[in-house]
Amino acid sequence: MVKDKRRRSSQVGLPPGTAIYVGERKPEKTRIWVLDYDKRQYIAKELEEVEECVKYKESAPMTWIRVVGLHQVEILERLGVCLGFHPLVVEDILNTTQRPKIEDYGEYLFIVIKNVSYDEDTLEVIAKQISIVLGSNFVVSLQETEEAIFEPILERIRNKRGKIRQMHSDYLAYALLDAIVDNYFSVIEKFSSKIELLEDELVEDPTQKTLNEIHRLKRDMIVLRKSIWPIREVISHLDRGQFSLINENTKIYIRDLYDHTIQVMETVETYRDMLSGMLDIYLSSVSNRMNEVMKVLTVITTIFIPLSLIAGIYGMNFQFMPELGIPWSYPVIIIVMIIIGVLMIAMFRKKKWL
Amino acid sequence: MVKDKRRRSSQVGLPPGTAIYVGERKPEKTRIWVLDYDKRQYIAKELEEVEECVKYKESAPMTWIRVVGLHQVEILERLGVCLGFHPLVVEDILNTTQRPKIEDYGEYLFIVIKNVSYDEDTLEVIAKQISIVLGSNFVVSLQETEEAIFEPILERIRNKRGKIRQMHSDYLAYALLDAIVDNYFSVIEKFSSKIELLEDELVEDPTQKTLNEIHRLKRDMIVLRKSIWPIREVISHLDRGQFSLINENTKIYIRDLYDHTIQVMETVETYRDMLSGMLDIYLSSVSNRMNEVMKVLTVITTIFIPLSLIAGIYGMNFQFMPELGIPWSYPVIIIVMIIIGVLMIAMFRKKKWL
Amino acid sequence: MVKDKRRRSSQVGLPPGTAIYVGERKPEKTRIWVLDYDKRQYIAKELEEVEECVKYKESAPMTWIRVVGLHQVEILERLGVCLGFHPLVVEDILNTTQRPKIEDYGEYLFIVIKNVSYDEDTLEVIAKQISIVLGSNFVVSLQETEEAIFEPILERIRNKRGKIRQMHSDYLAYALLDAIVDNYFSVIEKFSSKIELLEDELVEDPTQKTLNEIHRLKRDMIVLRKSIWPIREVISHLDRGQFSLINENTKIYIRDLYDHTIQVMETVETYRDMLSGMLDIYLSSVSNRMNEVMKVLTVITTIFIPLSLIAGIYGMNFQFMPELGIPWSYPVIIIVMIIIGVLMIAMFRKKKWL
Amino acid sequence: MVKDKRRRSSQVGLPPGTAIYVGERKPEKTRIWVLDYDKRQYIAKELEEVEECVKYKESAPMTWIRVVGLHQVEILERLGVCLGFHPLVVEDILNTTQRPKIEDYGEYLFIVIKNVSYDEDTLEVIAKQISIVLGSNFVVSLQETEEAIFEPILERIRNKRGKIRQMHSDYLAYALLDAIVDNYFSVIEKFSSKIELLEDELVEDPTQKTLNEIHRLKRDMIVLRKSIWPIREVISHLDRGQFSLINENTKIYIRDLYDHTIQVMETVETYRDMLSGMLDIYLSSVSNRMNEVMKVLTVITTIFIPLSLIAGIYGMNFQFMPELGIPWSYPVIIIVMIIIGVLMIAMFRKKKWL
Amino acid sequence: MVKDKRRRSSQVGLPPGTAIYVGERKPEKTRIWVLDYDKRQYIAKELEEVEECVKYKESAPMTWIRVVGLHQVEILERLGVCLGFHPLVVEDILNTTQRPKIEDYGEYLFIVIKNVSYDEDTLEVIAKQISIVLGSNFVVSLQETEEAIFEPILERIRNKRGKIRQMHSDYLAYALLDAIVDNYFSVIEKFSSKIELLEDELVEDPTQKTLNEIHRLKRDMIVLRKSIWPIREVISHLDRGQFSLINENTKIYIRDLYDHTIQVMETVETYRDMLSGMLDIYLSSVSNRMNEVMKVLTVITTIFIPLSLIAGIYGMNFQFMPELGIPWSYPVIIIVMIIIGVLMIAMFRKKKWL
Repeated sequence: MVKDKRRRSSQVGLPPGTAIYVGERKPEKTRIWVLDYDKRQYIAKELEEVEECVKYKESAPMTWIRVVGLHQVEILERLGVCLGFHPLVVEDILNTTQRPKIEDYGEYLFIVIKNVSYDEDTLEVIAKQISIVLGSNFVVSLQETEEAIFEPILERIRNKRGKIRQMHSDYLAYALLDAIVDNYFSVIEKFSSKIELLEDELVEDPTQKTLNEIHRLKRDMIVLRKSIWPIREVISHLDRGQFSLINENTKIYIRDLYDHTIQVMETVETYRDMLSGMLDIYLSSVSNRMNEVMKVLTVITTIFIPLSLIAGIYGMNFQFMPELGIPWSYPVIIIVMIIIGVLMIAMFRKKKWL
Repeated sequence: MVKDKRRRSSQVGLPPGTAIYVGERKPEKTRIWVLDYDKRQYIAKELEEVEECVKYKESAPMTWIRVVGLHQVEILERLGVCLGFHPLVVEDILNTTQRPKIEDYGEYLFIVIKNVSYDEDTLEVIAKQISIVLGSNFVVSLQETEEAIFEPILERIRNKRGKIRQMHSDYLAYALLDAIVDNYFSVIEKFSSKIELLEDELVEDPTQKTLNEIHRLKRDMIVLRKSIWPIREVISHLDRGQFSLINENTKIYIRDLYDHTIQVMETVETYRDMLSGMLDIYLSSVSNRMNEVMKVLTVITTIFIPLSLIAGIYGMNFQFMPELGIPWSYPVIIIVMIIIGVLMIAMFRKKKWL
Repeated sequence: MVKDKRRRSSQVGLPPGTAIYVGERKPEKTRIWVLDYDKRQYIAKELEEVEECVKYKESAPMTWIRVVGLHQVEILERLGVCLGFHPLVVEDILNTTQRPKIEDYGEYLFIVIKNVSYDEDTLEVIAKQISIVLGSNFVVSLQETEEAIFEPILERIRNKRGKIRQMHSDYLAYALLDAIVDNYFSVIEKFSSKIELLEDELVEDPTQKTLNEIHRLKRDMIVLRKSIWPIREVISHLDRGQFSLINENTKIYIRDLYDHTIQVMETVETYRDMLSGMLDIYLSSVSNRMNEVMKVLTVITTIFIPLSLIAGIYGMNFQFMPELGIPWSYPVIIIVMIIIGVLMIAMFRKKKWL
Repeated sequence: MVKDKRRRSSQVGLPPGTAIYVGERKPEKTRIWVLDYDKRQYIAKELEEVEECVKYKESAPMTWIRVVGLHQVEILERLGVCLGFHPLVVEDILNTTQRPKIEDYGEYLFIVIKNVSYDEDTLEVIAKQISIVLGSNFVVSLQETEEAIFEPILERIRNKRGKIRQMHSDYLAYALLDAIVDNYFSVIEKFSSKIELLEDELVEDPTQKTLNEIHRLKRDMIVLRKSIWPIREVISHLDRGQFSLINENTKIYIRDLYDHTIQVMETVETYRDMLSGMLDIYLSSVSNRMNEVMKVLTVITTIFIPLSLIAGIYGMNFQFMPELGIPWSYPVIIIVMIIIGVLMIAMFRKKKWL
Repeated sequence: MVKDKRRRSSQVGLPPGTAIYVGERKPEKTRIWVLDYDKRQYIAKELEEVEECVKYKESAPMTWIRVVGLHQVEILERLGVCLGFHPLVVEDILNTTQRPKIEDYGEYLFIVIKNVSYDEDTLEVIAKQISIVLGSNFVVSLQETEEAIFEPILERIRNKRGKIRQMHSDYLAYALLDAIVDNYFSVIEKFSSKIELLEDELVEDPTQKTLNEIHRLKRDMIVLRKSIWPIREVISHLDRGQFSLINENTKIYIRDLYDHTIQVMETVETYRDMLSGMLDIYLSSVSNRMNEVMKVLTVITTIFIPLSLIAGIYGMNFQFMPELGIPWSYPVIIIVMIIIGVLMIAMFRKKKWL
């Protein structure tokens, strides 16, 4: 998360609308697929030239233009020109550190959203930007890397599953957003099991590792929270905003999606609360154990130091120590020592230190 | 609570409106009871076939369709079709991880709510989803497992107690919600006595067990809070929303119910505050006791270590130590040791360490 | 506070409007006084029969019906019937765990409020419910136990002090609320002196008792806060709500009352802040003192343990230890020991541990 | 602050509008000055009789009546009658524990505000109430004690500095409020330097005194905050409220004043944040230093205790200990001891404890 | 930050509109540049006399008057007179402790904003005030010191890059604000890398220095937050306020700028959260390490103190200690000691202390 911010400065000082890609530069080229469909027909094709997209967009059926890979700035600028996007839109698509937002440009709605994934290697939540442009009969989705999240939607379009083939572009945009929000649930579930494991660990044997793990999870929650909060605003805006592109009968789905977003948010907040609680418990446990250690130290010291003094006294080399000559004084001293030790232990028992 | 989220992912990637039951699959079949009543007559019957419900629903008297068990998806889909529910409604009924909400579908209101119970074995609060569909002359209630909470309402209908037999469907829906909210009070009371016990324990003898108990109660409060907050929204919406299905004279009851919900919420918040306070006290107590332990250790060490040094000095084997030959030097040294010890104790008394 | 909730569950499962008294059952009977007054005349009388109240209520002059003791449910139900109260009103009067609220029933306003007192024996804040029903020319006040708070108002009516005898029922209701809010100031002042004492104790000699006291005061603040917050809402509602029973020239008094309520609230919040601050200081002080204890332990140990080793070495019984035979080696060793001790002390002085 | 509340209870039980002074009773009498001015002329006079003020008020030029000392209740009541104030206004002027507020009485605006000063002796922030009554061509200011804050305004009126002589009563009221808010800046600056000093102390050598100082400053911030928050409301109300007495061209000054109030508030909040941060740092530092102390203790103990055991073993008096007779065993043992000590030190170095 | 407040008091007691410069007095004189441009032409000139600016302002093309250095009050007062500014505007320009704000003076908008920079020497965030006055065909920018942030805009105007030469004064004002907000990103990035470094340090080897660093960063975040929050308000006001000077097609850029401001704010909040989390982790780590230290101490003490007692006992000088004469008792005792030591170690292993 911290790293994401770093790239942002490459844009400082440039005029607004300057298209600069701030993500990592990768060797693969930007790929553009077009999906043209209505109730009856269905065409899927990868474009060779950016400019072909205009033909599909203009044609009657619904068009879904899927762009993967944002590092070839020039291709994206040409795409923007073809489809008639405002320069700020192209800038925001490429500046992948954008905050999720929705902008109404009259002829189209521009939606920026974050898709999260959990990297099992670095144990970090990664938020990738996905931009969606929703026009009257087309949807353009733009993402940095190929990911599987839109696969089920492609599947449904291909196989005519659900009613997606009969609906307008707003329903497709909803479907894309729904896929992204559903993906948050998958990521959250990974944390749910991690937190459970951590809780058991906390009760049984908390270590510095447990602490670092809590810390890392708390940071992941911050990332998730930062992604999902503005998404809630975007979807709430879609529902309540007076966008002519959103039909009334799609709104019930958007409302449902809004409820899911709230659920994600609440779960993230709940996890944050739980992790904070766990940190408190951890601190208390450490204090408790230190208390135990201190008690052991004190008990041992308190029992043996006085006995050592007694032994030390009779180890002194004074010539006139009458006790030293008495035959039964050695066993008496040993018995006295034992009695003192037993009394001390009894006292500590009473104090509940043992 | 953590576990509840886990099942949610089975739905990821499916088209909206797909009915999938996310709860545990249980061997018993889904059961449907119908209660048809008005001021004079009263019919109670368990349905063999789902489709029978239409007959009762269409008939003039108020109809309460009570569905218990949600794992037979196909039966619930058929029920949804019979009663003319939107596919999203059926999906939400089966997806028992829903957040409490209210949706106006014009002809009917769809209410999702959480009923809580306290499992004495696992010492956990369990929130079970109950869905209520409120039509102009029928109410459908759907719950995962048979529970006793609606028993008093059945009793009142059967015995004509109160005015429930003279009222419309909105009053029945209110009665169901009232039963659920009242149940929160029962659960909260269990916590009230637990917290009181814990407070006494905290003052008398706080242990690691006390700490774990506080932690567990805090988590239970998070669950309760997560359930009751959206219920407040639902009931507030029922009161203030312009729903044609809610009569004006039912609103005074809903307002009363709203006050109860606020009371539950405030009690939960108060308990959270108190538990946080208890955690602070626990931490302070542990610090205090460690301080006591440290003082004992320091007192013992400070008294005996210097005396041991004296004994050690006269235990040295130098040939020319004139004191060793003097007859009264042994008792003098012992007296010096006693004086040093007494002075030390006096000093610690003054420092209030003893 | 925790205990208050317990009684609430006796009502679970009953139809709304069922009158059940949830407080303690006491041997004294419910007593009802009637005060009938206008500018000229003034009648005060204790009623034998509940039904007498109707006569006074119907009569032209202002009527104040004062009910003390709520455990005789049947009497209160009869009173409710006489005065034409909605069953929910009677239920709420008896259910003394209600949250302060105001309800407009058209012909009358129903106000539930909490009066607090501080029990010097149990050191707890006790919140007792007082219900006020305000009609066009009557006010009914209902309280659990006889208390002195309304005495000054009776006094003013009796002696024609202030302008209460010339005003309408809304002014009397205002006067009752004012008496209750003023009473909060009296309770708060008790805490003010307690907190001051505690602060001095905290600086001079904080003990576990101080900690428990802070904890108890924090809990009292939670109770006070829980009572005063909804009172603020009630009074704000009285001021801004469009109640036909509240005259415009009474509003200036209600606004003044509102300011007092805010002042109580802010004082309670300030005390909460101060108590939290005191807890922090307590914890810091304990840590500080532990630090002092540890330093003493470390200084003593560090000075005497090395010296003991030296003594131990010359206490070894090797036959060939040339130093032992040298006459001046004993005083030299003693001097070396003193030098080591002095150097150690100097080092600790430099480290500011002494 | 705690003490301020105490006096409030003297008013409990009295009818509203009863004028009672709750501050300290002082020997000096209440003094009233009148300032009558317009563009050309300027009269300043101390009144002998309260009733004289009417003459000035009625006269055409702007009149500023300045009252100092509130303990002569009878004089203030007479003043209230002369100027036609509502009894609640007089009550609120005398009850100097009021919360800052603004009330519109139609013919005049009544403003209660708090002026703060920092008592260098008791190291406490003191908030004194100042009341301002703003009429169409007069302003009355009432304060408990003579203070210098209005001196510059008197100066400006006397010397025709600024445009105060050409403006209406609302501008004078603004000027008074501005003087009070500006005074907050002076007080805050005292804290700014105190906090800076404290921060240096915290880094260099934090002691219990530092802790007490932080605590005291936090309390002062609570007092400041409690005074400035409602002032913000008052001034915001002045700006946005539709008061006919406030001219449009004065509003730009009030808006400026509002910005200053916000700035005071933000600074107070910032200081609170900083002081909380300092408390955290203090606690961490104490823990850190305890850690250092513990390390020293552990290092000393770990090095010398094993060596003492070796010395102890060869101090045993067994008759058959062959090593004792060997000539080089003494130096060997000493060397072994040195090696053990050096190894221990090396180990602690590696552990970074030394 | 603390220091900034100090200068503010020099203004207390003066009439509003008095121009006083509260910043540091520097030897360089105030410099004024004028930039006169439209689509075709472009003139840049440094003014000798303040009054020249009028000529440029009145001329048809867009005029940007850039003022650097605010300590020559008299020059700024003359500038204010020339350009027809309200005295409060000049006062606010010179009082560089202003809170960011926007004021509509009808003919011009007055914007106060803070530009931040990070001083690598003192490791402090410094917020410098920049004032912008936006008229119908001119923009005046006033700043305390020459800084590079407006350089790229000058560059764009000079080289006709972007569309700035074709736009109105509102676009130039936007460009200036955009440059300032973009600058926040640069500053934030410096912190991002610092925080990352600190996190690694925290996991590997946290010291008192780490703590001080966290503390310093937290303070910097407070400064950043205090600057960016009101900027958000200013820009939101620019977007939503009905200012006639802001054209509709500039609003899309302002909205974009608003999103950036939110992003800065969220990042600052996130860093605050992360730093708070790091402080918690630090405290936990310190506790953990103290625990480790205590364990070592306890283990050593517990093993060696009992063994020392044994050695001490056989070092006593009683004449009748039969064991002393037995030849194998010395090795037996040594073996007993080793067994005790090994058993102790085994016990600590089991307790997981070793």
